Amino acid sequence: MTRLLLINPNISESVSELIRAEAQRSAASDTEVEVLTAPFGVAYIETRFEALIGAYAAAQLAAEHHARFDAVIVAAFGDPGLAGLREALPCPVTGLTEAALASACLLGHRFSIVAISQRIRAWYRETVHANGLSDRLASIRALDEPLADIGRVQSNQGERLVALAERCVAEDGADVIVLAGAPLAGLARSLQGRLPVPAVDGVSSAVRHAQSLVALQPGSARMGSFAPPPAKGNKGLPPAIAALLQRNPS
Amino acid sequence: MTRLLLINPNISESVSELIRAEAQRSAASDTEVEVLTAPFGVAYIETRFEALIGAYAAAQLAAEHHARFDAVIVAAFGDPGLAGLREALPCPVTGLTEAALASACLLGHRFSIVAISQRIRAWYRETVHANGLSDRLASIRALDEPLADIGRVQSNQGERLVALAERCVAEDGADVIVLAGAPLAGLARSLQGRLPVPAVDGVSSAVRHAQSLVALQPGSARMGSFAPPPAKGNKGLPPAIAALLQRNPS
Amino acid sequence: MTRLLLINPNISESVSELIRAEAQRSAASDTEVEVLTAPFGVAYIETRFEALIGAYAAAQLAAEHHARFDAVIVAAFGDPGLAGLREALPCPVTGLTEAALASACLLGHRFSIVAISQRIRAWYRETVHANGLSDRLASIRALDEPLADIGRVQSNQGERLVALAERCVAEDGADVIVLAGAPLAGLARSLQGRLPVPAVDGVSSAVRHAQSLVALQPGSARMGSFAPPPAKGNKGLPPAIAALLQRNPS
Amino acid sequence: MTRLLLINPNISESVSELIRAEAQRSAASDTEVEVLTAPFGVAYIETRFEALIGAYAAAQLAAEHHARFDAVIVAAFGDPGLAGLREALPCPVTGLTEAALASACLLGHRFSIVAISQRIRAWYRETVHANGLSDRLASIRALDEPLADIGRVQSNQGERLVALAERCVAEDGADVIVLAGAPLAGLARSLQGRLPVPAVDGVSSAVRHAQSLVALQPGSARMGSFAPPPAKGNKGLPPAIAALLQRNPS
Amino acid sequence: MTRLLLINPNISESVSELIRAEAQRSAASDTEVEVLTAPFGVAYIETRFEALIGAYAAAQLAAEHHARFDAVIVAAFGDPGLAGLREALPCPVTGLTEAALASACLLGHRFSIVAISQRIRAWYRETVHANGLSDRLASIRALDEPLADIGRVQSNQGERLVALAERCVAEDGADVIVLAGAPLAGLARSLQGRLPVPAVDGVSSAVRHAQSLVALQPGSARMGSFAPPPAKGNKGLPPAIAALLQRNPS
Amino acid sequence: MTRLLLINPNISESVSELIRAEAQRSAASDTEVEVLTAPFGVAYIETRFEALIGAYAAAQLAAEHHARFDAVIVAAFGDPGLAGLREALPCPVTGLTEAALASACLLGHRFSIVAISQRIRAWYRETVHANGLSDRLASIRALDEPLADIGRVQSNQGERLVALAERCVAEDGADVIVLAGAPLAGLARSLQGRLPVPAVDGVSSAVRHAQSLVALQPGSARMGSFAPPPAKGNKGLPPAIAALLQRNPS
Repeated sequence: MTRLLLINPNISESVSELIRAEAQRSAASDTEVEVLTAPFGVAYIETRFEALIGAYAAAQLAAEHHARFDAVIVAAFGDPGLAGLREALPCPVTGLTEAALASACLLGHRFSIVAISQRIRAWYRETVHANGLSDRLASIRALDEPLADIGRVQSNQGERLVALAERCVAEDGADVIVLAGAPLAGLARSLQGRLPVPAVDGVSSAVRHAQSLVALQPGSARMGSFAPPPAKGNKGLPPAIAALLQRNPS
Repeated sequence: MTRLLLINPNISESVSELIRAEAQRSAASDTEVEVLTAPFGVAYIETRFEALIGAYAAAQLAAEHHARFDAVIVAAFGDPGLAGLREALPCPVTGLTEAALASACLLGHRFSIVAISQRIRAWYRETVHANGLSDRLASIRALDEPLADIGRVQSNQGERLVALAERCVAEDGADVIVLAGAPLAGLARSLQGRLPVPAVDGVSSAVRHAQSLVALQPGSARMGSFAPPPAKGNKGLPPAIAALLQRNPS
Repeated sequence: MTRLLLINPNISESVSELIRAEAQRSAASDTEVEVLTAPFGVAYIETRFEALIGAYAAAQLAAEHHARFDAVIVAAFGDPGLAGLREALPCPVTGLTEAALASACLLGHRFSIVAISQRIRAWYRETVHANGLSDRLASIRALDEPLADIGRVQSNQGERLVALAERCVAEDGADVIVLAGAPLAGLARSLQGRLPVPAVDGVSSAVRHAQSLVALQPGSARMGSFAPPPAKGNKGLPPAIAALLQRNPS
Repeated sequence: MTRLLLINPNISESVSELIRAEAQRSAASDTEVEVLTAPFGVAYIETRFEALIGAYAAAQLAAEHHARFDAVIVAAFGDPGLAGLREALPCPVTGLTEAALASACLLGHRFSIVAISQRIRAWYRETVHANGLSDRLASIRALDEPLADIGRVQSNQGERLVALAERCVAEDGADVIVLAGAPLAGLARSLQGRLPVPAVDGVSSAVRHAQSLVALQPGSARMGSFAPPPAKGNKGLPPAIAALLQRNPS
Repeated sequence: MTRLLLINPNISESVSELIRAEAQRSAASDTEVEVLTAPFGVAYIETRFEALIGAYAAAQLAAEHHARFDAVIVAAFGDPGLAGLREALPCPVTGLTEAALASACLLGHRFSIVAISQRIRAWYRETVHANGLSDRLASIRALDEPLADIGRVQSNQGERLVALAERCVAEDGADVIVLAGAPLAGLARSLQGRLPVPAVDGVSSAVRHAQSLVALQPGSARMGSFAPPPAKGNKGLPPAIAALLQRNPS
Repeated sequence: MTRLLLINPNISESVSELIRAEAQRSAASDTEVEVLTAPFGVAYIETRFEALIGAYAAAQLAAEHHARFDAVIVAAFGDPGLAGLREALPCPVTGLTEAALASACLLGHRFSIVAISQRIRAWYRETVHANGLSDRLASIRALDEPLADIGRVQSNQGERLVALAERCVAEDGADVIVLAGAPLAGLARSLQGRLPVPAVDGVSSAVRHAQSLVALQPGSARMGSFAPPPAKGNKGLPPAIAALLQRNPS
C-alpha cells in the first residue's frame, strides 16, 4: 500500500475536492491519497507573493503530516515550496508543474501550458525556467476574464480552454498540452480525445510519478544540495518545522 | 494488464538478459514485459554511427511487434530512434535516457551520468542537449578501460562505477546519479543505500514511466510534429515499416 | 531624506549588526537606514528550505513596517521573498544578490561569488539562474569548514576568503568578485586594494541601488507581473499581509 | 580533381535531378559531382521517422561508394545520418542544413528558413538546435498546401516561396534566407536579386564547403568523438557497413 | 564632489543638450556632470558600422579628458566602446544600455526596449545579448518613420512612443520599459505616471549608477580581462590613446 | 579571377607576412590575394580596447581599398570591425574567427581554441558568444608566457602549442582544434597529421570561405540589419568612410 499526501497550498476547499477526485481516479488500486487544505493563505495562487505564502503553508502541513505518507505532492501549479520540501522531508516530494512537465516531455518535444488567468503566466514561465525547460516551452495561453468561481472554472470556461489549447497546437507548435493549475484537475481526463495532441494534468501526473518514485526506491540524499539542511540554531518556528530542521545530526 | 515491449537495439543477448531481469523487477504486478534483441547491429552502442544502425533495427522490431503491446521502450541509452518511433507508432514510446532523466528531474535539480566508456560521453551529452536539459547536467563521468565483457561490466567494474558516482556528487555538484546504459540495468537497485544521493536507472525508469503513460491515457497526436507522418510514396522498405507509413490517411 | 528598511530574514542579531554597520557606512548622508531581524527562522540561510522560511518572515516584517520607508531591502544573499515583495509593496524593493550582481555587471563581464559554506552554493547558483545571469557567472567558491560563529566569519576566515577570491580570478576568469552573504557585509570595504579585481558586497550595493531607485522615480506597476496581486479571498494571515493583499482594488 | 558524392536519402529521382543540376552549376571547374538516390525510403523526408529511414539508406550508399570520392554530402535538409557518417568515413562529410547554415552565418547574423511543408518545421528546428544555432534562427516559414509534385515545387510554388522569404525579412528580422530542402535546390540561384537579403541554398553551399574541406586538408580524427567507432562485435549488417566498423584497429 | 564625464559618441549637439539636461536633473547635489560631443562621426548611431566609428570617437574623447573625472559614461545606447574603455581607463566606466538594463533588472523581471528606429533594433538586440540578458528581454519595439529632427523626437513622436510602450506591456509581457537612446533622454521623467509599469532611461540610470560605482570604491582591475592592456608596441595613435596603452608597466 | 583583400588590423608587418604566405598557399589558382597592414594601432590585438582601435583602422583600409576586390577579410582573430563592415561594404566580408568557426563546425561538433596569450582568452570567448556558438566551444587554452617576437611565435612556441591542443582533445572533449590568431597563420598546415583531430586556421578558412561567398553569389542586403546604414549627417570622417555612409540613397 502506497500512501500519498497531496497538499493544496491555498484555502479553497472546492479546489481540494477537484484535486481529491482526480487523485483518486489516477491512483493505482494499491495507492491511498489524502488531500489537505492550507489553513491560511489565499483562494488561489497566481502571483509570486501568493506563492511565497502558499509555500510556507505547504511547509507547515508537510512538516506536521508527512510521517504517515510515502510521498508528498505540492498540489498547486508553480510548485510553491517544492524545492525546500525536497530537502527537508525524508520521502519523495513532487509538485504539479514538475510532474506535468515530466509527463509532457515523455509524450512530445514542445509543450504549451493552458492556464486560468493572464496574470498567472509570468509565474508559470518562471517556474518552467527554474526547471530548466524553457527551450521546450512552446507557449503559455490563458483565459482573460475574471474567474467567478475558482471551483467551477472547468465547467464555466471549458470551451474557451479547448480553444486555447487548439491555438497552442496550430499557432505555437505545441506537441503536448499541459492543462495547468489545480482548478483544472481532471480536465485532461474529461477532454480525452477532443484535443488534437496528448494532454496532461498536474494532479494525475503527480500521483503517477509519486507512485513511481516510491516504487523505484532510488535512495535519499545524504550529501549534495538536497540533503537535510545542516543543523543550526532556530527559534519561533512551528514545532513540526523545527523538528524537520533537526533531521541532520551534523 | 499492461504489456510493454522493450527493444534492445544492439545484438547482445547478455544485455537483453540484464534488461529483462530489471524490467521484471521494476514492473507492477499487472504489467508484462517482453524484450527483443536487434537482429542486426553491433555489440553495444557508443557512437552516433552505431546509434544510426540501432535506430533502424529498433524501428524494424517496433514496426513488426508493436501491435501486441500498450507501450514500447527503446532500451538503449541515447534513445536511438525514439523521436521517430513516437511519430510512427500509435502507442506511447519512451527510451532509457529520456526516462532516466525524467526520474532524475523529479528527485533533484542537477544530475550526473555515470557511463561505461569514455567514447560514449559525447553521444550522451548530445542526447541530453536534444532533450533540452543541458542546464541540469552536472557532469558525465565514465570508465576508461576497454570492456572485456559487456554483459558483466557491473560485476567487473562495480567499485569503479561507485567511485565515479561519488566524485560526481563531491566534485561536480550532482543531486542525482543516472547509471547509464542498458549494460548497467539493475545496478541502481543493487547499489541501494550505498550512494550518497538518489540513483536511477534507465530500464526501471522507462518501465515505470511507460506504465504511467498508459495509465494516464493522454490521447494521441493527430496534429503537431508527432502526428503520423503524412502519407507519401515509398519503396524498398520492410513491409512492417511501410505499413506504419500508411497510418496517416491524409 | 531617504529611508531604507533592511530586513534580515534570519534570527542572528550579530549578523544584523554587520548589516547595519555596513549599510550606514554605505548610505549617502541624506539616507537613513533601519535593520530589522526576523522574529522566527534560522541562524543563517544556506538551503532552499531555510530560504522558504526566511521569505515568509521577511514578508511579515515588510508588511508591518514598509509604510515608514522609501524602499525595502531583503538583506540575505539568495534574496528570499524578493520577487513576491516586489509585487506586494508600493515602494522599490531589492535584495543582496540582485544588487550585488547589478554592481558586478557594471564593473566587468564575468563575476565569481565567494561564499561561506559549500552547501550554500546550490542555492546561490539557482538564484543567479533565476536572475538570468548564468552566462556571466565564472564560478562559486566557498569555505569548506563548519562556521563556529556566523557573526565572526570575516575575522576568523578572512585569509581563506581572500585566497578563494584570488583563485576565482586566476583559475576561473572572474573580472569581479562578489563577496556573498550578509555575514560578509563590509568585507569588500575592509579588503579594499587587496584583491586583484573589483570586489562588491551585497549590503553596500543594495543600499546604493535602493537610493538610486528612489531617486529615479521610475513609477510603479499597475499592469504586468509586478502589479499588486489581484484581490481575492484570503484567511488566517497576519493582518499586515492581508492588508497588502487588498492593495489592488480590481 | 576533387570528386564529391552527393547522396539523396530519399527515393525521388526527380529530386536527385535537381540536386545534380545545382551541384554541377555550383562546383568549381576541377570538381566532379555524382548523385546517388536511396534504393529504399520515402518520396521526401519531412519527419523524424522518415529521417531515421533516410539515415540508414544514406549510410548504406556512403559505405558502398565513398572510397571513390574525396568528400561526401548528405543531400537532404535535416542532414539524416550526417553525424554518424562523419565518424565512420575517412573523408570529410557535410549535409545540406549544416552547409547552408554555415553560409548563412558568413553572410549575416540571423537567418530564416523557408521550407516546403508545415510539418517539416519541427524537424528543421531540431536540426538547428542540434547545430547549436538556435540563437541565430529568426524563424521558419513554410508552404501550407500539399505538394502535388515534389520535383516541381519550385515552379509551382515559386511566388509563394518568395512571399514567405519577404515576410521573414520584414516581420522576423532575418538577415539571410535559407531556402531549405533538396526540392528547392537551385532556387536561390534563380531568384538572384529578387530577394531583399542574401539567400543561400543547401546544395550549392554543401558543394562549395565540401571543396573547401578537401582543400584545407585539416587532418582526420584519431581521437575524440569523431574518431572511427571502437571495434566491437557486429552481425547482420550490409558488408560495406560492417567494413566501415572495422576501420578502427583498437 | 563627484565629477562625471558623459561622452556623446555622435556629432549632434542637440542630443548632447538633451543628455546634459537629464544628467543634471538626475545627478545628486554633490555631483558635477560634463557632456562632450564627438568631434567626428554621424548624426546618430543606429548601425554596427556607425557604432564602430562612435566607439573610436568616444575613445579619443575619453583618453583626452578622463583624468579630470571620477567616472566616464558612454552616452549612446548600444554602449559603443564601453568594454574597451573599461579596460583602458583607471576609473569606472558605464554606458546607457548597460546602466538602463541594470535599473530595469532591479525593478522587474522582463523588460522591453522602446527605440527610435526600426533599423536600430538589431544593434540593440545584440547589445542585450552581449550583456547576457537575452532571457529577460521581452521585446524591442521601435518607431517606423524617418526622424525629421533627432533632437526633437520626443516632442514629435511622444504619443507614438507611449503607445509602443503600452503594447510592450500588454502584448509582450514587459515588467519594465527601457526608453532607449540618448535622443530620448528625459522622456522617462516627463512620462512619469503615464505608463502602466516602471520606465527607465539610459542617461539618468548611468548617472546614478556611476555615482554608486564611485561611492562603493570597489577597487580596480590589476588582473583579469579588465586590467589595462599589456604593454606592446604601437604607432600612429592620438597621443592620449597611446598614453592609455602605456598604463600597464608589464 | 577572384580578388581578395586581407586587412591586418594591427601594425606588425611580420604578421602580415605570415598572413600573406598562408593566404597564397590557401587560395585557389584563380584567386589573387592582397594583404594590407593597419597604418596605426598596436603590435597585436589581445584586448577589447585594442580591438576597438583595430576595428577603426580596418574600416579605414576597407573603405579606401574595397572597390578593387571581390571580398574583404578582417585578418585578426576576434574579427574587429567585421559586423560593421558587413553593413557598409557592397561585397562579402568575413573574418578569421568567424571563418575558422565555420570550418570547425563542418568538421566536428565541439571545438577548442588554442591561443597565444592568457589575456586574449576573454576577448575570444566573447567573440564566440557573439557568434552564438558558445554551446560548441569545448575550451580555450593559451600560452602563458610573454611573447618575445609576435612574428616568430610559431617557431618559438610550436611544441607548447601542440601540447595545448592535445590537452583540449584529451581533457576538454574537443573534436576540432582552432589555431587562433593571425600570428599562427599557417600552423595548422605545418602541423598536418601531428594532431589527433582536425585542425583549422583562420587565414586559410577565411580565404576559402570568401571564395565560396563570391562564387555562390547570394545577393546583397537591401533590407534588414546588414543593409547599408541609412543616410544621415556626418562630419570629420576620412573621405572614404564618409563615402561608404552615402551608399544608401534613402
